Amino acid sequence: MIAVDWGTTSLRAYRLDAKGRVVEQRDAPKGILSVAREEFPQVLEAICTGWKEMPVLMSGMVGSRQGWMEVAYVQCPAGVDNLAANAQQVREGMWIVPGVSFVDESGVPDVMRGEETQIIGAMDEIGGDGLVCLPGTHSKWVRVRDGRITGLRTYFTGETFAVLRTHSLLGRMMQEGPADDRAFSEGVDRSGDEGGLLHHLFGVRTRALFGELNGAQAPSYLSGLLIGTELRSMAGAKEVFLVGTAQLAAGYSRAAGLLGIKTTILDPLAAPKGLYRLAQAVHA
Amino acid sequence: MIAVDWGTTSLRAYRLDAKGRVVEQRDAPKGILSVAREEFPQVLEAICTGWKEMPVLMSGMVGSRQGWMEVAYVQCPAGVDNLAANAQQVREGMWIVPGVSFVDESGVPDVMRGEETQIIGAMDEIGGDGLVCLPGTHSKWVRVRDGRITGLRTYFTGETFAVLRTHSLLGRMMQEGPADDRAFSEGVDRSGDEGGLLHHLFGVRTRALFGELNGAQAPSYLSGLLIGTELRSMAGAKEVFLVGTAQLAAGYSRAAGLLGIKTTILDPLAAPKGLYRLAQAVHA
Repeated sequence: MIAVDWGTTSLRAYRLDAKGRVVEQRDAPKGILSVAREEFPQVLEAICTGWKEMPVLMSGMVGSRQGWMEVAYVQCPAGVDNLAANAQQVREGMWIVPGVSFVDESGVPDVMRGEETQIIGAMDEIGGDGLVCLPGTHSKWVRVRDGRITGLRTYFTGETFAVLRTHSLLGRMMQEGPADDRAFSEGVDRSGDEGGLLHHLFGVRTRALFGELNGAQAPSYLSGLLIGTELRSMAGAKEVFLVGTAQLAAGYSRAAGLLGIKTTILDPLAAPKGLYRLAQAVHA
Repeated sequence: MIAVDWGTTSLRAYRLDAKGRVVEQRDAPKGILSVAREEFPQVLEAICTGWKEMPVLMSGMVGSRQGWMEVAYVQCPAGVDNLAANAQQVREGMWIVPGVSFVDESGVPDVMRGEETQIIGAMDEIGGDGLVCLPGTHSKWVRVRDGRITGLRTYFTGETFAVLRTHSLLGRMMQEGPADDRAFSEGVDRSGDEGGLLHHLFGVRTRALFGELNGAQAPSYLSGLLIGTELRSMAGAKEVFLVGTAQLAAGYSRAAGLLGIKTTILDPLAAPKGLYRLAQAVHA
């Protein structure tokens, strides 16, 4: 089969053998934001040139309103069965997997597309129960119970970092440079002090003004502040599974360690595994 | 005398009579960011054309590193006496008032320039003791005891709103429109829910996605979220004095009301009053 992880900014296709092992992987900077609605079939065809395997299963923002076809969210609890049952066929042998929605105690909805498939792919490593964090532009915290996704919380952490870094007064005094572990740790520490995040953000500026942070350290301090704030708000989390790029997973793992939270970093190639499991259920 | 409130983006000059009453006011979009260092004298001269009064006292970012002359911060506790004693003369009869710095329990510094003068000007209304909030791009919370400034905390709230509104995914679905009181109140309520600000920011997007907020309501909801978060982080505040523009003071007052915090809105023209009091002390 062919597994396709099609997000906002990138497209990843995997050719799998009959046992679900990745035989070949291809990436393209063809996220859905750069693809017009009528171009989806030809972009898929192009990245799969020469591949004959069927079926093709896709997950991610390709199933959103801005994607190839809008596929309605499956509400929590979500597992292989109802995710597969609600996959939508877009062409003969080609399917898009639904995302997952969750409504919290206050009635506010939350959503994800693509991460549910990674969770399904990582389920064996998770062992069927646990709290999973998928850091990113919008990091996802997913509660798993008895092999099903039972809750979901999204954090705007990565995008907040990016807009502050690029467009705020804080960014003006920052310079490119290698990550600074000490400044990052100081930010994580600071995130627990009285005053809250909106106050501590101004502290990035004053600490620079008083010579306590230089331009190359300030981005790491800001990153520590934001990730520390995110982790602390998951009050009571003692153990977290992390799925993400090596760099992000390492940052979250370091911050979690400072806060006494145990982390286990999972195989980041969880998407094709999840699509393989879902494909079996779609065809069962 | 002449009182000058010279900030980052605006310049306000006041001609006062011998009793400190404002006889004439002039504003110009000549904040320090738009003035080269050697141009400060002529910009001041231009806005004071035809005025002969002396002395001239100035407060605000004009005393910062990017201003006319850097005037060292006075550390808390700060009152009329040490602010006046540390004013710097830039020309015969012309003075710049220092800002105020404060170092919190964790050793992180905080600063203000201009707000200390507003507090001095509002001291009679405050009655010498209280918690004062000056909302703005960087809102200031100032603790006053026995007629002196004893503590200070800055929030990055206004700038965070602006960068999220203009540069983030949240801004893309927002439209111009009148402030929406109900959406604002919902944001203030939501700011107290579990998950923290970084999570609730993503909720702006999901509520819009699910049709619970339209493009014109979303900015008010975001504003309520941010101001509510700021107010809640001042845990235990029961009564707050507000100094600021009518629109900002009204928004903070409404949010505080929803949280059971009593507010008193003070005369926004506190800067010339403060400069008048400081001028008397400079010349005592």
